[in-house]
Amino acid sequence: MSTNEHTSRSTGTGTGTNTRASAAPGARERLVVIGGDAAGMSAASQARRLKGPDELEIVAFERGRFTSFSACGIPYWVGGDITDRDTLIARTPEEHRARDIDLRLRTEVTEIDPDRGRVRARDVASGAESWTSYDELVIATGARPVRPELPGMDAPGVHGVQTLDDGQALLDTLARADGRRAVVVGAGYIGVEMAEAMLRRGYEVTVVNRGPAPMATLDPDMGLLVHKAMEGLGITMVNDAEVTGLVTGDDGRVRAVSTADAEYPADVVVLGIGVRPETGLARAAGLPLGEHGGLLTDRSMRVRGHENVWAGGDCVEVLDLISGQERHIPLGTHANKHGQIIGSNVGGDYATFPGVVGTAVSKVCDLEIARTGLREKDAHRAGLRFESVTIESTSRAGYYPNASPMTVKMLAELRTGRLLGVQIVGREGAGKRVDIAAVALTAGMTVEQMTMLDLGYAPPFSPTWDPVLVAARKATAKIRATAGAPTPSAGPTRSR
Amino acid sequence: MSTNEHTSRSTGTGTGTNTRASAAPGARERLVVIGGDAAGMSAASQARRLKGPDELEIVAFERGRFTSFSACGIPYWVGGDITDRDTLIARTPEEHRARDIDLRLRTEVTEIDPDRGRVRARDVASGAESWTSYDELVIATGARPVRPELPGMDAPGVHGVQTLDDGQALLDTLARADGRRAVVVGAGYIGVEMAEAMLRRGYEVTVVNRGPAPMATLDPDMGLLVHKAMEGLGITMVNDAEVTGLVTGDDGRVRAVSTADAEYPADVVVLGIGVRPETGLARAAGLPLGEHGGLLTDRSMRVRGHENVWAGGDCVEVLDLISGQERHIPLGTHANKHGQIIGSNVGGDYATFPGVVGTAVSKVCDLEIARTGLREKDAHRAGLRFESVTIESTSRAGYYPNASPMTVKMLAELRTGRLLGVQIVGREGAGKRVDIAAVALTAGMTVEQMTMLDLGYAPPFSPTWDPVLVAARKATAKIRATAGAPTPSAGPTRSR
Repeated sequence: MSTNEHTSRSTGTGTGTNTRASAAPGARERLVVIGGDAAGMSAASQARRLKGPDELEIVAFERGRFTSFSACGIPYWVGGDITDRDTLIARTPEEHRARDIDLRLRTEVTEIDPDRGRVRARDVASGAESWTSYDELVIATGARPVRPELPGMDAPGVHGVQTLDDGQALLDTLARADGRRAVVVGAGYIGVEMAEAMLRRGYEVTVVNRGPAPMATLDPDMGLLVHKAMEGLGITMVNDAEVTGLVTGDDGRVRAVSTADAEYPADVVVLGIGVRPETGLARAAGLPLGEHGGLLTDRSMRVRGHENVWAGGDCVEVLDLISGQERHIPLGTHANKHGQIIGSNVGGDYATFPGVVGTAVSKVCDLEIARTGLREKDAHRAGLRFESVTIESTSRAGYYPNASPMTVKMLAELRTGRLLGVQIVGREGAGKRVDIAAVALTAGMTVEQMTMLDLGYAPPFSPTWDPVLVAARKATAKIRATAGAPTPSAGPTRSR
Repeated sequence: MSTNEHTSRSTGTGTGTNTRASAAPGARERLVVIGGDAAGMSAASQARRLKGPDELEIVAFERGRFTSFSACGIPYWVGGDITDRDTLIARTPEEHRARDIDLRLRTEVTEIDPDRGRVRARDVASGAESWTSYDELVIATGARPVRPELPGMDAPGVHGVQTLDDGQALLDTLARADGRRAVVVGAGYIGVEMAEAMLRRGYEVTVVNRGPAPMATLDPDMGLLVHKAMEGLGITMVNDAEVTGLVTGDDGRVRAVSTADAEYPADVVVLGIGVRPETGLARAAGLPLGEHGGLLTDRSMRVRGHENVWAGGDCVEVLDLISGQERHIPLGTHANKHGQIIGSNVGGDYATFPGVVGTAVSKVCDLEIARTGLREKDAHRAGLRFESVTIESTSRAGYYPNASPMTVKMLAELRTGRLLGVQIVGREGAGKRVDIAAVALTAGMTVEQMTMLDLGYAPPFSPTWDPVLVAARKATAKIRATAGAPTPSAGPTRSR
């Protein structure tokens, strides 16, 4: 292992965690970015937009072979909707380099030394290591998939879908494999999207899910709608099932997925169990982590207590504006915002991230699934009392062709009537309606205020009362009805 | 003409406009509704929900043959998307009567006498007239189409599309007529929707439009996108053309539409010029009208200065929350809200209409057109200085199949950065995105706040930065760039 120190262009490196390295007048500062995906490269690009190479040197380390790719697009690539992998790459290494970003692929950062303002990086191919000093550091190490330590988990035919390499490996298996039985482990966003992908590839698909219904980001009653719809698509749904191991054949390849109760034959297994913040480096460096294992930042995306260290994307925790608590929400849209904000601040501008309301949307074939704000259990955990209503409506005027049914569940705070959350399950036109609620949540609206929202109406687009407004009306009536009633003695009231 | 007075069940009728008729304890009050469409019958239904027939008698007068129908659906019925006219009727006369609403069809109210708390109504068939006293009155007389007094305007083959009878008459003409040339006069919502309808019926369609571009509810630069798309559909678009008359043939039927410059052959002519509040009765009764000719109400939808007279729907003016000025916006979604509010208040509950932000959405074949808030000229008129930006994006992630292009224009107030308006022209997935802006406008958000909105993201639904957020980012940058600059000396600045 060779360790040679890059020459820092700045005149000093901090010796304490709160001391900022300050450049001599006219000296060029160095920004080091760890992680070449959405958050990291957005930060680099935005900083570059604001400061030219004469002012700011930018070095970015990426342990993989790609930059700025859309992990969210992988299920659609595997499913065959997208045939060209390279369209998933928003910006290639060459494009970044053309903008004077010193991008080092296949180079893994192995240590952060905030006291001396430097990182140690290892060339994956040669194993050579070297230190690089920084004036500003961006940690954008992303997340790593949860892979339970179970027998057979590393067998051929078992695939995660976190990176483009993962996606390619799965596609290679599909091209090779003879069988037509796929088991997807996990029924969150990745799980249900991969179930669709495998279905579209012509597989018999079984989804093995630990929870009582798919989509644990919904309340179970709404998850049940997803369960039924997925069964309707011919997917075998197994709930309340913990995977105990993977069965392999004589050739070492996976043959089945075992749970406590049963064994599900599998020619290929896709893991969609979720991800955790990739914060081993940060932890070793003594940087502050939250209860979900993500880095904690201030509003400007600066790591708390560290003047010149920034973090964003899947490796940080974000403030949930409705519960007031930190959450870990790995999602490209947040990562891009974080990167933009970090780059602005590093570049001398000013920007902040206010937090999230927890909006997410997904689909399984033509079923659209969306949520924002708090589920019932989130509201409990946050100490909020609420009413909950569920309504059925349609995406278009009932008489208009292809008006599709839609179920909207809405939670509102008792007494105040403040909107707490919305969940939507339906067909075409259902998913993005959640944005109405996302903005209303951000604005702190009450459900009664929402009933009078001036939303776009024409028969091809909506009933005269948009489904979200129908839910708001029902929630308003419920809140009013209980306003005069005695406070429920235990927990929230619920109803359909 | 027979004039016999209905017995009022209330013990007194007011003698001054501000005196409310008060019922004796236990006496049944009478609610009279003028107009059996969305606002009127929503009011009647909601009042009935809150007060049974023992408490409240409800009499509704409707001069036509239908109740609670969707005028917005007529273009799709004419175009053939909807084959059964009756599906456009949300609630039939029989259904209303079954809920103890004394509905009198083909009965036209000819006078309102607020001093004595009564209305005079005429049976259209017999001509018989009678007075009916009220304790509460709802005026929901709707709007009437603009029909310029030009030669040939009443010729066979010339059709409005305001009522179900209008729609049926047009369909009868289409079934009979030999020619295949249709001219649509006007290029607002009704005009463009009828252009699509006639296209779908197999006609060669010409749209003759007074303004510089179709959709005057958009700025002309955005209207131009609609113009081009409609031309792309094979529709002949004639702008800046004032109709001077209709040419009729020997058989008296329409043959062409004349403008100052040209003559456009027509086997059928559809009028989509717009509507005005139908407030002749109200004017004659001395009720307060605004500058657009609509009734003026307070927030509870009570006619200003008249304790027991309410008005809603297409015959009233509404407060535009962004300009602070009154507007006339005939739209079913407002009419339904007004009716709901009036019914709640008459029924003893409490509800108010806060005003509108001016959201509207429409389509021509697969082109979606949406707007909310102020256009440039509205902002001028309101005394607001602003920046304007226009961006191009896509409805889905760029790499996802069927990602369709979308243009978003955004106006933001100078200095404050407050969102003032959004216009969207695109394909599938474009139109309802305007709701994001509608809610943000209602909440008084700045464009910078909007850049951080937590909207639903997944590749089939949106790019990582939703098009509305892309526009908000550009608007934010523009506002920031001019924040330090001297105030423009004349009018607002504009850019693409």
